[in-house]
Amino acid sequence: MPSVSSVDFTIQPTHEATLPITDLTFRRGYGSFDFLYVIDGVPMFIDDHLARFHASSRLLGLGPIPSQEQLKAHAHDLIDANGGGTFGLQLFLTAGDPLDGFTPQDARFIALTVPAATPSPDAFESGYRLITHQHQRDLPEAKTTNYFTAVRLAPKMREMDANDVLYHDGERVLEATRCSFFLVGEDGTYVTAGRDILPGVTRLNTLRALRHAGLPVDERDVALNEVGRASEAFVTSTTKGVMPVLAIDGEAIGDGRPGPRTREAHALLKAHRAEWARAYQRP
Amino acid sequence: MPSVSSVDFTIQPTHEATLPITDLTFRRGYGSFDFLYVIDGVPMFIDDHLARFHASSRLLGLGPIPSQEQLKAHAHDLIDANGGGTFGLQLFLTAGDPLDGFTPQDARFIALTVPAATPSPDAFESGYRLITHQHQRDLPEAKTTNYFTAVRLAPKMREMDANDVLYHDGERVLEATRCSFFLVGEDGTYVTAGRDILPGVTRLNTLRALRHAGLPVDERDVALNEVGRASEAFVTSTTKGVMPVLAIDGEAIGDGRPGPRTREAHALLKAHRAEWARAYQRP
Repeated sequence: MPSVSSVDFTIQPTHEATLPITDLTFRRGYGSFDFLYVIDGVPMFIDDHLARFHASSRLLGLGPIPSQEQLKAHAHDLIDANGGGTFGLQLFLTAGDPLDGFTPQDARFIALTVPAATPSPDAFESGYRLITHQHQRDLPEAKTTNYFTAVRLAPKMREMDANDVLYHDGERVLEATRCSFFLVGEDGTYVTAGRDILPGVTRLNTLRALRHAGLPVDERDVALNEVGRASEAFVTSTTKGVMPVLAIDGEAIGDGRPGPRTREAHALLKAHRAEWARAYQRP
Repeated sequence: MPSVSSVDFTIQPTHEATLPITDLTFRRGYGSFDFLYVIDGVPMFIDDHLARFHASSRLLGLGPIPSQEQLKAHAHDLIDANGGGTFGLQLFLTAGDPLDGFTPQDARFIALTVPAATPSPDAFESGYRLITHQHQRDLPEAKTTNYFTAVRLAPKMREMDANDVLYHDGERVLEATRCSFFLVGEDGTYVTAGRDILPGVTRLNTLRALRHAGLPVDERDVALNEVGRASEAFVTSTTKGVMPVLAIDGEAIGDGRPGPRTREAHALLKAHRAEWARAYQRP
């Protein structure tokens, strides 16, 4: 279990780390966010995460933004202070304490470590069940602290025995609350939404692994009625990797079991992650 | 200037008051909120605000919720600790620190005092200019910390020299980011959205004052195309009271000056507020 986190680069016990109640990210739900998975002391795909954290912070007009070099060095300081291991590392850039209570200024940087278990092999075979909900996240290209709809829908999700909620805009399938969404088309192409979604880091690395293997991928608008015709579907996320989607709103996808294309994506991502971790050199 | 606030009912200097970084309201933008205007030591319409704060907290599934009696007594402790005066009092119920990072539990109660100036009489004559934006707040009946869209649009609002952003859903006019919206129909009726909006406390008290004076009011869906035909429009808010809307998206409403029906609503609300304050007895 990680036990220390940081506020403005000061490492301290997580249960003692605090934020002023004047900070707008608390008061107005406006801040940028990212989530890294540290596995055996290695911050997986850290450069992709820090590039996105920078992009999200710029889209929100938050700053000053610490440099990616500074953030990377600090991530390693935090990993060392926690004695390495496997855990989640949440990054936040806040909106500060403007007198008008509305205009971001003098951002704080917060790094919060949280437990993150390694998924069991059973998890892949059990797969995910999704329910759908019409919702388009505001400023979807940015990863933010605005999980209002996701938290609100969590009780309904549990009641329906689902693992996540799949957002659509009435015409197009977009993404789940904490995962990116893929389906396998009739011709075997891997299809995922090409816009109006979060640029998921695991989504990106799954696409890289599929393309590197010469498999057909298509990033484009995905019509809602394509989902029922898909032979397979899966989600990708930082901690779950490639996770088969076996049913949506109670309707089975394909034969309701993880399919061969999903297994292939899973194996390719797994190999890509292992290769990335082997080649990783800390700064 | 108020100088003290409170965390879990412990009064302390505002600049020293903090929240754990593990609290979900910070991490996920999920918390209930309310805003009281304290005028010369009197927490205006406090019972309406506390009833709404309770309703919002229940809608969000947050708790335990302190009783309205406890909150009212504490508001007076805070007013006394600040030496009375005129200021804003922001109330928050947070989502606590669940281990799963997603399921609210063991809410914290935060009371933050902020400066709030008395509006000048000039402000009424200068009026408000609005710009429109298509957006439906999630769970609109609850007042929450989710001001993501409002904060995001603030630079555009300033660029367009506007005072607030009026939300619509493509068919119906709803509300502004921090005000309720009224228009005066062709027959002189005061019209305001009847659903899918925040139950504004000043909106409620304006409706009470209008009805008490025997004036015609209508709470119903307001079509977007009614706005251009309105002879007058105004917004209501806790600090602004009744504020004339003189233009929307650069198009003048009526003759572009505060109209007689708006002046009447303004005077009726002002009298209602004064009467309420005179009759108020602290617990």
